[in-house]
Amino acid sequence: MKKILYILIFLSTTSSIAQQIEKVEPPFWWNGMHRNELQLMLYGKDIARYTPEMEGITINNIRKTENPNYLFVTINTENVPAGKYTLKLLKNGKRAVDSYVYEFRERKEGSALRKGFDSSDLIYLLMPDRFANGDSGNDSHPGTTEAADRSKSGGRHGGDIQGIIDHLDYIEKLGATAIWSTPLLEDNDPEYSYHTYAQSDVYRIDPRYGTNEDYKRLADELHKRDMKLLMDYVTNHWGAEHWMIKDLPTYDWVHLFPEHGRREFPERRSRSGAEGSRRAGYANSNYRMETQYDPNTSDIDKKYCVDGWFVSTMPDLNQSNPLVLNYLIQNAIWWIEYTGLDGFRVDTYSYNDKEGISEWTKAIMDEYPHFNIVGEIWLHNQAQIAYWQKDSEIGALQDFNSHLPSVMDFTLHDALGVVFNEDEATWDKGIVKVYSNFVNDFLYSDINNLLVFAENHDTQRLNHIYEGDIDKYKMAMTLIATVRGIPQIYYGSEIGMAGNKDKGDGDIRKDFPGGWEGDENNAFTASGRTEKQKEYFDFTSKLFSWRKHTPVIHTGKTKHYLPENNVYVYFRYNDNDTVMVLLNNSAEARTVKTDRFAESIGHHTKGKEVLSGKAVDISETINIPSKTAMILKLE
Amino acid sequence: MKKILYILIFLSTTSSIAQQIEKVEPPFWWNGMHRNELQLMLYGKDIARYTPEMEGITINNIRKTENPNYLFVTINTENVPAGKYTLKLLKNGKRAVDSYVYEFRERKEGSALRKGFDSSDLIYLLMPDRFANGDSGNDSHPGTTEAADRSKSGGRHGGDIQGIIDHLDYIEKLGATAIWSTPLLEDNDPEYSYHTYAQSDVYRIDPRYGTNEDYKRLADELHKRDMKLLMDYVTNHWGAEHWMIKDLPTYDWVHLFPEHGRREFPERRSRSGAEGSRRAGYANSNYRMETQYDPNTSDIDKKYCVDGWFVSTMPDLNQSNPLVLNYLIQNAIWWIEYTGLDGFRVDTYSYNDKEGISEWTKAIMDEYPHFNIVGEIWLHNQAQIAYWQKDSEIGALQDFNSHLPSVMDFTLHDALGVVFNEDEATWDKGIVKVYSNFVNDFLYSDINNLLVFAENHDTQRLNHIYEGDIDKYKMAMTLIATVRGIPQIYYGSEIGMAGNKDKGDGDIRKDFPGGWEGDENNAFTASGRTEKQKEYFDFTSKLFSWRKHTPVIHTGKTKHYLPENNVYVYFRYNDNDTVMVLLNNSAEARTVKTDRFAESIGHHTKGKEVLSGKAVDISETINIPSKTAMILKLE
Repeated sequence: MKKILYILIFLSTTSSIAQQIEKVEPPFWWNGMHRNELQLMLYGKDIARYTPEMEGITINNIRKTENPNYLFVTINTENVPAGKYTLKLLKNGKRAVDSYVYEFRERKEGSALRKGFDSSDLIYLLMPDRFANGDSGNDSHPGTTEAADRSKSGGRHGGDIQGIIDHLDYIEKLGATAIWSTPLLEDNDPEYSYHTYAQSDVYRIDPRYGTNEDYKRLADELHKRDMKLLMDYVTNHWGAEHWMIKDLPTYDWVHLFPEHGRREFPERRSRSGAEGSRRAGYANSNYRMETQYDPNTSDIDKKYCVDGWFVSTMPDLNQSNPLVLNYLIQNAIWWIEYTGLDGFRVDTYSYNDKEGISEWTKAIMDEYPHFNIVGEIWLHNQAQIAYWQKDSEIGALQDFNSHLPSVMDFTLHDALGVVFNEDEATWDKGIVKVYSNFVNDFLYSDINNLLVFAENHDTQRLNHIYEGDIDKYKMAMTLIATVRGIPQIYYGSEIGMAGNKDKGDGDIRKDFPGGWEGDENNAFTASGRTEKQKEYFDFTSKLFSWRKHTPVIHTGKTKHYLPENNVYVYFRYNDNDTVMVLLNNSAEARTVKTDRFAESIGHHTKGKEVLSGKAVDISETINIPSKTAMILKLE
Repeated sequence: MKKILYILIFLSTTSSIAQQIEKVEPPFWWNGMHRNELQLMLYGKDIARYTPEMEGITINNIRKTENPNYLFVTINTENVPAGKYTLKLLKNGKRAVDSYVYEFRERKEGSALRKGFDSSDLIYLLMPDRFANGDSGNDSHPGTTEAADRSKSGGRHGGDIQGIIDHLDYIEKLGATAIWSTPLLEDNDPEYSYHTYAQSDVYRIDPRYGTNEDYKRLADELHKRDMKLLMDYVTNHWGAEHWMIKDLPTYDWVHLFPEHGRREFPERRSRSGAEGSRRAGYANSNYRMETQYDPNTSDIDKKYCVDGWFVSTMPDLNQSNPLVLNYLIQNAIWWIEYTGLDGFRVDTYSYNDKEGISEWTKAIMDEYPHFNIVGEIWLHNQAQIAYWQKDSEIGALQDFNSHLPSVMDFTLHDALGVVFNEDEATWDKGIVKVYSNFVNDFLYSDINNLLVFAENHDTQRLNHIYEGDIDKYKMAMTLIATVRGIPQIYYGSEIGMAGNKDKGDGDIRKDFPGGWEGDENNAFTASGRTEKQKEYFDFTSKLFSWRKHTPVIHTGKTKHYLPENNVYVYFRYNDNDTVMVLLNNSAEARTVKTDRFAESIGHHTKGKEVLSGKAVDISETINIPSKTAMILKLE
């Protein structure tokens, strides 16, 4: 047993063999940051026996933990000029047993004031393993366990960062102005690592996707096109294979449930994470996020929600431990600064320790006041979702402020997933479900900073729900493209891709056709597309390219009208422009009398259909075919 | 045509023939009220030609309207001693053509500080026409149109105030401490007048129910028993047969839609209200109460919601007209003061002009700071309901404060109407629906001032939904009896009465058996009840009588636990007492381990089942049969 342990240590430290310092995190930093302290984590066998010293830098605090393999050294970074600083480890206060050259890089100009994604953007969500394989040489990698196997729906298929870079033309052509890629950091789980939410090293891009430099190159390439990059950040948990999970810095780095098992420490180092977790006492989350604000909740239910693990292979991080929280804050800032990110999407936001995640979010927004972060708040009640948005008055009922600028309009998503199959309108069926979503807009503190979407990598595919009926797809996309908020689409749907979640997540995360050498169908190019794919793509591209250049949609006000006969009409308007949107969700053509909309139409008598360019007389009536969306720019 | 008009005037003024003043409203007032002005409405043919004068009273304002048959005289009531004051009408400022002796009565001591109904009460809701016929002599009445006909489900059946008074023993025995009777004021509609929401004279009890004095006697009888009386007040509309609707004081006394018809005035007087309304331009409400706060709403949708009529026979009152608003405020205060009321239930509260109804509510609460008013806010979203409660932070998002102390927990009602048929629990099915209702309690500004109920006179009957399964009834009642808020039950269910709303409102408003002479079955008395009725009644009576004397239920805190296996467990507790409630909604008996509830159970090892008195060992497990509610007082 001991033998195995030593071999493992040996293997994991080959790069710094004979050195005391195995790792320093963050590996480097920048000068001129808002935060004036930096918590360096030093890792190495029995490193806590030594005393750190750093020339030219004030050490504010040295924190040792229950685990002698860690040292947390907080340094003062105020007014530290860019440059290299030698961090020494001293034995008995004298002899240096090891050293590390710590670099403060020159911060890029304007970095702090970078502008995050906003309602002028269209976000294209993709799963990197399933989008395009730009470098088949990294499909499998010696430093990671799971090898590529395209035959497995839950296996790694080989998609990578180069694949994304190779198809930026395509994404741009679609009208997208931002990419949200699901996570790219190392996930060394033995299986299902393709989803990459069970991360094993959060300072390293998974080598099967590329390198840290590749990720930065992706950002640079996007910025050249005036496009943006969102990182999918995971604060709630790491993978069981994370090197720190296998050698926990503190007993409470993750949420353990000793009552569910024996607590062992630090011998766990030798065990695989999942096995170690079980021994340490693992408990699953009850997923009842309502316990986060339920005034009647029992402590135990709240504990199981927040501290319970999402799945047994994802140990739940304890953000109420300041060491953990600082580690996560610095890691997030490191990626923004290093890559030049334009935003975060934060996974399972509302499962985090409420106060911890709020502090994490605030720290990032303090550093980058115009940045944007959207949290996954997967709830089905607008007051509950609104609770989690920055400066929410609903959160304030419990003196809570998440500082999270953006949340997801999951209730709109819920409606979009059923409404276009409801041909017959009743009091609460049909397109009124969409109307009803917007009546509660006042509950949100910043309505234009909501992510609006019909699907994502965790939900049923739109084209599956509507069985490939392009008219219904068009209606959903028209809504996404014209209502308030930030539209987000999901890779593949724009060429009619379907997939059924009931068959497993793999089915809604299929490979994009044309992303792999030898693919018969290449939907990335106009000539490679089937007729059906062309129809989907051309519509989507036209719609969102129009949106891209239409400020009244980005920031205009909304006025909507109670649906009649399953027809919903709304307007986006500002001082200069008025756009009228009509959605006929009934199975029959409708003639809509326009006098009812007088307060929005004003003096206008004509509209131009923005996709066809056709002129439409709106002075008395508008005819609209069944299952059709129409966008008119009033003239 | 003119001839008919004169005949009608003649008929309607026979009691004051040759007098100029046909009516003065309010007919009298009290000294020492908080409000220091009183708006007297004087009515009579061409009364506006004359000048009012009132000995010993300062007239602050005389307001004439478009209709010469009205005079609105605002008098200063500050420090006016109780007594009689002669109001004279002068012609040319000299000769008195008529006079009216206006009385300021001595106010009852403590009137202003009366305590309204609260969470210590159980409210018994009844429909007076359908409860008991205490005086068969008034079943029909020469002054009103519709005669009694028990064979019609939508007709008048003859129930009356005396019938209620006759059965106060019964109601008290049940554990009820308050009565909410649906409206009793005159409703002279030619049919369906039994529901009495289309009132024709709001200063007069409908003679088919009794007299104003009878109503006061009902209050007195209740007060003798330490019970309370709630009046069902209708601010939103009157009946088309209301005498003022037939001779509107101002064009805008009710909401008219001239674009829907010709506006005629004042010749309408000669027509029946409904016909007159149609001519004046009637429009139905769209019933979309969301337009009251929807930030995206169009003006036209909001107008049709608020100004549109509930039905064509109920002209919609315009509370934005101060004359109307004052009339309604004074009328409400008049009934409180005259009768000695303990509360209002306000019909269709959220259909009223938002600012107007808020002012109405505030005026009443200013007059009686400890009074209680519950508004019918029939919505299915807690944030939307909470919006309407006094001092709501959600209302404050739009600078709105309804001043309404109590709202109805319609979302709990929605859950109770389905949940007991859900034997199989899933993520969102089964008893978790009830749990989920309470997680949002923090949205309300005063959670203990919510009306909790499983049914009312407008909803499906509980015993119909659950097909007379008494176990399910017991579970619903146990919830109503033990959760926060003010429980309200609906007449007849306590003896197992059913009725199907789908067959029409009459079916959920059947006559209480025993309320009519000759009824074969008399469920008012123990000996008259069938076995089944006895089982329902005895359970209900025991449950609510226990609640009546259990302060921890009235005002204790709540702690609840996420349901497991369709079993829901919660506690009500204060410094002295802890009550544990278990609801097993599954089709099987369950054994509940109690260690999970340690934070609520504390040192207790025993509980007493409050209905059976049985001792229960709670130290390890509790066995609970299927479809069973258990209430344990911890000992």
